[in-house]
Amino acid sequence: MPRAWHLKSRPQGLPTADNFELKTIELPPLEDGMVRVANRWLSVDPYMRGRMNDVKSYVPPFAIDAPMEGGAVGEVVESKAAGLQPGDRVVHMAGWRDEAVLPASAATKLPDLGVEPQAFLGNLGLTGGTAYFGLLDAASAKAGDIVFVSAAAGAVGSAVVQIAKASGMTVIGSARGPAKCDFVRSLGADAVVDYTAGSIVKSLAAAAPDGIDVYFDNVGGDHLDAALALARRNARFAICGMIDAYNSGQPTALRYIMRIIAMRIRLQGFIYTDYLPRMGDFYRDMGGWIASGQVKSRETVVEGLERMPEAFLGLFEGANIGKMLVKL
Amino acid sequence: MPRAWHLKSRPQGLPTADNFELKTIELPPLEDGMVRVANRWLSVDPYMRGRMNDVKSYVPPFAIDAPMEGGAVGEVVESKAAGLQPGDRVVHMAGWRDEAVLPASAATKLPDLGVEPQAFLGNLGLTGGTAYFGLLDAASAKAGDIVFVSAAAGAVGSAVVQIAKASGMTVIGSARGPAKCDFVRSLGADAVVDYTAGSIVKSLAAAAPDGIDVYFDNVGGDHLDAALALARRNARFAICGMIDAYNSGQPTALRYIMRIIAMRIRLQGFIYTDYLPRMGDFYRDMGGWIASGQVKSRETVVEGLERMPEAFLGLFEGANIGKMLVKL
Repeated sequence: MPRAWHLKSRPQGLPTADNFELKTIELPPLEDGMVRVANRWLSVDPYMRGRMNDVKSYVPPFAIDAPMEGGAVGEVVESKAAGLQPGDRVVHMAGWRDEAVLPASAATKLPDLGVEPQAFLGNLGLTGGTAYFGLLDAASAKAGDIVFVSAAAGAVGSAVVQIAKASGMTVIGSARGPAKCDFVRSLGADAVVDYTAGSIVKSLAAAAPDGIDVYFDNVGGDHLDAALALARRNARFAICGMIDAYNSGQPTALRYIMRIIAMRIRLQGFIYTDYLPRMGDFYRDMGGWIASGQVKSRETVVEGLERMPEAFLGLFEGANIGKMLVKL
Repeated sequence: MPRAWHLKSRPQGLPTADNFELKTIELPPLEDGMVRVANRWLSVDPYMRGRMNDVKSYVPPFAIDAPMEGGAVGEVVESKAAGLQPGDRVVHMAGWRDEAVLPASAATKLPDLGVEPQAFLGNLGLTGGTAYFGLLDAASAKAGDIVFVSAAAGAVGSAVVQIAKASGMTVIGSARGPAKCDFVRSLGADAVVDYTAGSIVKSLAAAAPDGIDVYFDNVGGDHLDAALALARRNARFAICGMIDAYNSGQPTALRYIMRIIAMRIRLQGFIYTDYLPRMGDFYRDMGGWIASGQVKSRETVVEGLERMPEAFLGLFEGANIGKMLVKL
């Protein structure tokens, strides 16, 4: 019997394993135009925390006692749709489960870019696309800019570091602890900030003595405040995520927000899916960088559907380097 | 003997009269290319609080025991410069004093727009220009937008309300207490928020049930947070001033900052002087609105150089409706 993770209860603050329940599901009959997909790779992403709240946002909240959703790569095992055949690999949003029946229109056949299929959940999917459009469009980053990116050892952050280096920028990445900082350096970062080693403002001032032109925010809180403190004139911030705030429920305290005025700083929030019409640009550039080795994929893989909540909760404990994935 | 206000000491928090000292000054000799100006109107503006700190910003700090500076309108009383003659009215930055000797290049002869000369410190000067460029450029406000402006009874805020109405926008203004709210309504605002009457978030939600497209921030703090809470998709914020933070020294606590992401909000800091190359547009539009009566000037006038610190300190106590001026 196919199984899917259900939202059992809404978390207050940090989610726990108790918020999830793995249950068998009944799949709809395979009608014309539909495919049955056996999932091979499932994505866990920080934004999913927002869907666990009962708050209307850019994606609807998960419903209690209903299967959860998320990015997935799978293999078509049965098809009543013209364009897809058994054996085709597809990416779709019916994740958090081992098997799905869905309209062919909701599944995208993986383009042949010579990469591992799970890359379409990572550097060629939501992760890489978020990094690419956030850095180059929301933050208008250009060659010569000094870029600061938080959570630089994470999935999106590590893509930002590599895209920025491939585009002729200077990059400072923050990460938790020496091992992750070494990983960020190995991606090409010019400097790193270990945010467990004291004041982020002081560490960033040391790493970027001339200040920063661009900040790619995955974290919010003290990281955002440090970026405000060090921003140069006409700095641009892409606001992608605020993992610090997802679970805390506390207001964000900013000491340096007034510098927005003197430095003419721009903060721009953005959502990856707004850029879907420009995926052609993204596949062209990112595909090229992956082919040339300028962008590499680093994954943290957890095996087995049973361990999916563990993989998800690990995102908030810094358990991953690079993209966190569940392999079935 | 000419006299000028000097910065005697730097304030901690709210400035007091003790931070200022009125002293006689010795003017430089009137050399070729220079004019002697008798000041008639002096401007006090919230941004001057920033110059009292010993912090490098977009304008240098006032020096201790040196004359202060600021906008002034005066009359040329003696000239060794080709383009200016006695009797000419000029606007310049040698304010906080009754008389000044300065290069003709530092004084702008008032264009003949059929307005009172002090308008060049108000709706045709820094005040109106800040409102005009902030609203229309930094916030990209356009006809049909729902605009929220804080400190709407103040100099810049009251100009924003009127420019927005003249441009076909819906406007909600915040002010302190019923009298100021009535004044904001009299400017044409569609709704008002009395921020002394409870939660700004709740009041703004009632005044703007469909949310806001634009926020013009003069205040920061709870006002900024309420604007984040009510922002609609693709909202734009012009960050002009944060009078709440100028004196407090406390970090700004924002509960709703995460909405930047879901609503794709843009925050843009700006400085009026960046727009000086576009003053032609400003004089054309603002001159037209003043001539047609769509923008009116309301002033709070304090008489006498001796009372200038009182006028300045009044800005932080809400003592003014419209533009605060000192008349000599």
